[in-house]
Amino acid sequence: MDLEDLQVQIRNFARERDWEQFHTIKNLILAVSGEIGELASVVQWISDIDSSSLEADPKLRAAFEEEVADIFIYLLRLADVSNIDLIKVTKEKMRENSLRYTVEKAKGNARKQEK
Amino acid sequence: MDLEDLQVQIRNFARERDWEQFHTIKNLILAVSGEIGELASVVQWISDIDSSSLEADPKLRAAFEEEVADIFIYLLRLADVSNIDLIKVTKEKMRENSLRYTVEKAKGNARKQEK
Amino acid sequence: MDLEDLQVQIRNFARERDWEQFHTIKNLILAVSGEIGELASVVQWISDIDSSSLEADPKLRAAFEEEVADIFIYLLRLADVSNIDLIKVTKEKMRENSLRYTVEKAKGNARKQEK
Amino acid sequence: MDLEDLQVQIRNFARERDWEQFHTIKNLILAVSGEIGELASVVQWISDIDSSSLEADPKLRAAFEEEVADIFIYLLRLADVSNIDLIKVTKEKMRENSLRYTVEKAKGNARKQEK
Repeated sequence: MDLEDLQVQIRNFARERDWEQFHTIKNLILAVSGEIGELASVVQWISDIDSSSLEADPKLRAAFEEEVADIFIYLLRLADVSNIDLIKVTKEKMRENSLRYTVEKAKGNARKQEK
Repeated sequence: MDLEDLQVQIRNFARERDWEQFHTIKNLILAVSGEIGELASVVQWISDIDSSSLEADPKLRAAFEEEVADIFIYLLRLADVSNIDLIKVTKEKMRENSLRYTVEKAKGNARKQEK
Repeated sequence: MDLEDLQVQIRNFARERDWEQFHTIKNLILAVSGEIGELASVVQWISDIDSSSLEADPKLRAAFEEEVADIFIYLLRLADVSNIDLIKVTKEKMRENSLRYTVEKAKGNARKQEK
Repeated sequence: MDLEDLQVQIRNFARERDWEQFHTIKNLILAVSGEIGELASVVQWISDIDSSSLEADPKLRAAFEEEVADIFIYLLRLADVSNIDLIKVTKEKMRENSLRYTVEKAKGNARKQEK
């Protein structure tokens, strides 16, 4: 299953439940914020969380995965109602990032560069 | 280009710049929060924003697309460093959502259902 | 009770529970993000929410107030561990905003001004 | 100057610029999200940031303070348009937290407690 199939599935899910009325751009941005907030809550008090912490704790991993999935569901839905091709705009942004953050300038330095 | 290629490209981008040291799980969640915050800033004062507002205003659309792309870049990177298969966990969540929000129960009603 | 008393109360609350170890700057920013995310979740699907919607629905109002309180608790705690005088920096920012957004320039126009 | 004076100042600032039309509950929640996102961006790549990092780097401290102030400005404005007494609801939440997270139960353990 590729990204577009998933996006269509999410669109149909909303349509069947008559939820399109709720899926305005602002509401979906609030929903993405809500889910990233929930993900933040999952990790906020865990010192030094990394991929091995997630592997070692199936309950934590399940909670983490669920929030990541929720963010992605709403992000796909937001791109859909905004008529944005998520892969295309992301590839363009990566191209722009390559020019803006050349290896030479950016090596070992995560400081934001002027456009 | 599919999702995995994009994820590999983002990973290589980080590796070449020696940015892997910055890409801890917490830092990447802060980064996703930062980008969703920037997207919120783009729309916050626009009444009734929808896909036609974006079409009618190329500058707004460009800003919007850029933030959506940034969210997705960091979400892909977060999934990568967390060893999460984004498509797989999202499909699983959608399956769970189908059971939790049956059409019968959820039609026209966006209220959160107990698990 | 004024702001500083409240801040001291929150500090003591953390101290008594031996929670100071968890209250790093990054963790507290994640916690504020988490709470603003929960507030976003409370309103996300409600069309045209305003103060009268809150008055008309005591359960909604209680949920809303609780999240606003949680944001403020973590913001006060964040200011405390960062040695920031919240009132002072906010007054300074308002002074700066007055210069940046003069009534003449900003009337009826919420667009961001260059510094 | 106390909290209410600050809140009145922010209200007048909005009124004089005819910005009340933009200050709906949802827009202000998006604005708080935006500012917490900007604060997240300030710290996201800094390892081990704490109050002494802020003291040692005046530019970082200024950026940090500015975002904290912006969060507080929008939070005060949100409380104002929602007719919420920020101090009152926060004191109530702290009282509830005291019962929910007793020292006995919560000492050294930041896990969320059921209500």
